[in-house]
Amino acid sequence: MTSTPDPKATPGDLTELKRVLHQVSDLNAAASLMSWDQETQMPPDAARVRGLQMSTLAGLSHELFTAPRVAELLDAAADPADETDAALVRVTRRDHAKATRLPTEFVEEQSRAASEAHHAWIEARQTGSFATFAPHLERMMDLARRYADHQGYDEHPYDALLDDYEPGMKVGQVRATFTDLRDRTLPLLRRIVAAGDATDYSVLTRPFPVDAQRRFALRIAEEAFGLNPGFSRLDESAHPFQTNFSRDDIRVTTRFDERYFPMSLFGTWHETGHAMYEHGVAARLERTPLSRGASLGVHESQSRMFENLLGRSRPFWERYFGVFAQAAPDVAAGQDALSLYRAVNRVQPDLIRVEADEVTYNFHIMLRFELELALLEGTLQVRDLPDAWNARMQEFLGVTPPDDAQGVLQDIHWSAGLIGYFPTYTLGNLLSVQLLDAARQDPVIAQEVDRAEYGRLREWLVQHVHQYGRSRTPAEITLAATGKPLSADAYVAYLEGKYGEIYGLN
Amino acid sequence: MTSTPDPKATPGDLTELKRVLHQVSDLNAAASLMSWDQETQMPPDAARVRGLQMSTLAGLSHELFTAPRVAELLDAAADPADETDAALVRVTRRDHAKATRLPTEFVEEQSRAASEAHHAWIEARQTGSFATFAPHLERMMDLARRYADHQGYDEHPYDALLDDYEPGMKVGQVRATFTDLRDRTLPLLRRIVAAGDATDYSVLTRPFPVDAQRRFALRIAEEAFGLNPGFSRLDESAHPFQTNFSRDDIRVTTRFDERYFPMSLFGTWHETGHAMYEHGVAARLERTPLSRGASLGVHESQSRMFENLLGRSRPFWERYFGVFAQAAPDVAAGQDALSLYRAVNRVQPDLIRVEADEVTYNFHIMLRFELELALLEGTLQVRDLPDAWNARMQEFLGVTPPDDAQGVLQDIHWSAGLIGYFPTYTLGNLLSVQLLDAARQDPVIAQEVDRAEYGRLREWLVQHVHQYGRSRTPAEITLAATGKPLSADAYVAYLEGKYGEIYGLN
Repeated sequence: MTSTPDPKATPGDLTELKRVLHQVSDLNAAASLMSWDQETQMPPDAARVRGLQMSTLAGLSHELFTAPRVAELLDAAADPADETDAALVRVTRRDHAKATRLPTEFVEEQSRAASEAHHAWIEARQTGSFATFAPHLERMMDLARRYADHQGYDEHPYDALLDDYEPGMKVGQVRATFTDLRDRTLPLLRRIVAAGDATDYSVLTRPFPVDAQRRFALRIAEEAFGLNPGFSRLDESAHPFQTNFSRDDIRVTTRFDERYFPMSLFGTWHETGHAMYEHGVAARLERTPLSRGASLGVHESQSRMFENLLGRSRPFWERYFGVFAQAAPDVAAGQDALSLYRAVNRVQPDLIRVEADEVTYNFHIMLRFELELALLEGTLQVRDLPDAWNARMQEFLGVTPPDDAQGVLQDIHWSAGLIGYFPTYTLGNLLSVQLLDAARQDPVIAQEVDRAEYGRLREWLVQHVHQYGRSRTPAEITLAATGKPLSADAYVAYLEGKYGEIYGLN
Repeated sequence: MTSTPDPKATPGDLTELKRVLHQVSDLNAAASLMSWDQETQMPPDAARVRGLQMSTLAGLSHELFTAPRVAELLDAAADPADETDAALVRVTRRDHAKATRLPTEFVEEQSRAASEAHHAWIEARQTGSFATFAPHLERMMDLARRYADHQGYDEHPYDALLDDYEPGMKVGQVRATFTDLRDRTLPLLRRIVAAGDATDYSVLTRPFPVDAQRRFALRIAEEAFGLNPGFSRLDESAHPFQTNFSRDDIRVTTRFDERYFPMSLFGTWHETGHAMYEHGVAARLERTPLSRGASLGVHESQSRMFENLLGRSRPFWERYFGVFAQAAPDVAAGQDALSLYRAVNRVQPDLIRVEADEVTYNFHIMLRFELELALLEGTLQVRDLPDAWNARMQEFLGVTPPDDAQGVLQDIHWSAGLIGYFPTYTLGNLLSVQLLDAARQDPVIAQEVDRAEYGRLREWLVQHVHQYGRSRTPAEITLAATGKPLSADAYVAYLEGKYGEIYGLN
């Protein structure tokens, strides 16, 4: 690829560059709509051709973005004075470099391997046979190492992987933070388990008609969390997700179980956190690489804040128990705000990450981080992974999976080649509390939140987090918004306060 | 644009050409999905950015298809031996020539003018003031003349316009056919009006809950007409339409009025006719310019067959009256198959095309055809259009619009620059009967249709019409399927038989 600036592109003039970026953004939006439609609306027979159509769009988008002309325009762009333009050029250069460092054959091999690994994973889960999946996981790890080599890194290949999900984050920082988190929350978990628990959790499995669940989940998402039918809609899908095609075209999904309402409620509010982040990105970043959340971790901080810090808070249930009781009289019968608050905050060491509570969740993540790191470094062999997994589950949570389907095979991520992705869940948890604490420095926000009113909190989040999109790094956003770098401190204090009170540990 | 065959393209090798055509088809499918989503699912605030995204996709599709490389590939393609490949090259050459004959400035001017004319039309309809719309209609007519000049024509500029909707059709044939149709059906209409009518039509406006309308319309569309949730879905939209993103991904819409059930029922079955046509196109034409209906007229022959020839037939109501009575007991009370059959076949000269019955409908079309032809030729001035319209309405249907909103301003077509489009509605009506008569030559099909069973008829339609997509012209399809060119004969005989019996004219 030539890097000779094209004469037509006068230095600093971003007009043509922005036109290309708009086209790429529009193609990606069309691909996202095809994917949303596939998950929520599409007739089943359409799947085959839809796959071909989506890969065409992905190919054209990649072609447009990696064209030599874009490199010329980025070279000619110099360093714009305007802060947003400067960020646009900076981030686009990084994306473009990453996209062009990978040989086409490698990208093709990667996507072939991922699709084969995905099918093997599905089969392995059904048969509970890790051996079926093992060779594919070895291949995904090999591809991850080669991916890191293509992208380059200073200290550790894992940094090159992590950077795609959490720009600027390093394995060293993750390791230090996770060790601190583990050392300070494992004792708390042990005390909670030892404390025993007299709460009646049968309320969680009382029948709650799906339509009523949907109306209640959506009403809260709108009244409390700011979702609005003007710019969003809620649909059902096999796995809850948020996607959007512009800041004013946001699609949230959830799933329903009539006999376990927490799934649809907290699922909807979780995705609503992601939705409000994307809706809060400044309009001036529209249709550019900046018009998305800064990282998976920052995104997760928003979804977890709505789902857990707010949606599972005592003021929330004190405020909304009446509405809940109207929506689900049979469930609410004999209950009150406090009993429901306790029920939805049950701490229970168990096997499955996606069903884990606030205290145990991060151990599921720390375990995955340690293991994928060891696999990448070669200090752990894939064939020894199930034993290593089960040993850690026993060490952290005192439980042992009866089979690999409920153990090492439970997550889709590794089969899709998503290595370095898991830590962002816990980073998001930590950041969620650090951000809420910072927002609460404003006494008005603190008073509102203690009444389960979130209007000013949401304004604070837009101002300090959402509006920047990708124009600031996660570290910049964290430091500017909270005054300190990310750490486990706030989260540990939050857990000790909340669960110390629920389980009467103090 | 160069027409030197590229050395890399060995003559006759269509691999690269097909790859480009697949990409164009996939981009168009994405644009169609965006449009369907906009009409049926999209949150309102999303409209502005959606418009930008859709124009990007249209632009990229046009760019890909009109690239000089495509011209080289078409030149190098020679004339393939394979019949489908030969049709692909033939049709693609025609599409490519049409797309490249238009200067970019003209296309841009056209789309600007259409968007302005559309807004002026909406305002003119609301205020009932034709003067607001007149200058825009003059401009659309001027653009239509210039469009015809760009595309070229042998005898009449109207032929160049007509050809986009009804490939190969000429104004002379339309004029002759319409004159014949008018001369033979105007007397019938006069006799029907004179005959008077004792039928009780209040049944049509009895309340029929929307959900029940939807279930009944869809059940019939599936049981009788072959629509299948495996490859289709039904949604609600302001104006009913059919769109699809592949033969196995078809979206049908309708609209509901609790106090006028024929709208949703016959609307659904009409769009189901379009849907089954697109679903019947051979899979081997997938993702190419051939994988669509042959013309608007042939398309309309399928939708009108399902809506009218079958859905408004006596055997249909004799077979399905019981199902109807279950779905709408209050509507069916005191009715029987025959009374409902008569009610849904009311002949009533009136003002609005889209509400017209089988006998009067074509007069609305003939009127529009005469007038747009006269405007194009300059023998009628735009300022004189309302008077000319009202005079013809009086002459044909014996009614005069109280205002232009219910007269010359009622259709969107001219405001969108769709000149030469209207005739295809009547051509479709004529073809629908000519095709059904041909299919009924098979006695088994005739017996089934007389029992309102349509399985073999649908197979016949796939075999003689659907499967070819655009690989045969409408004239070729008509001649091969019915043994004669298109004429008014079958339709006139159909009307005389059906309405002669209903109104006891014989």
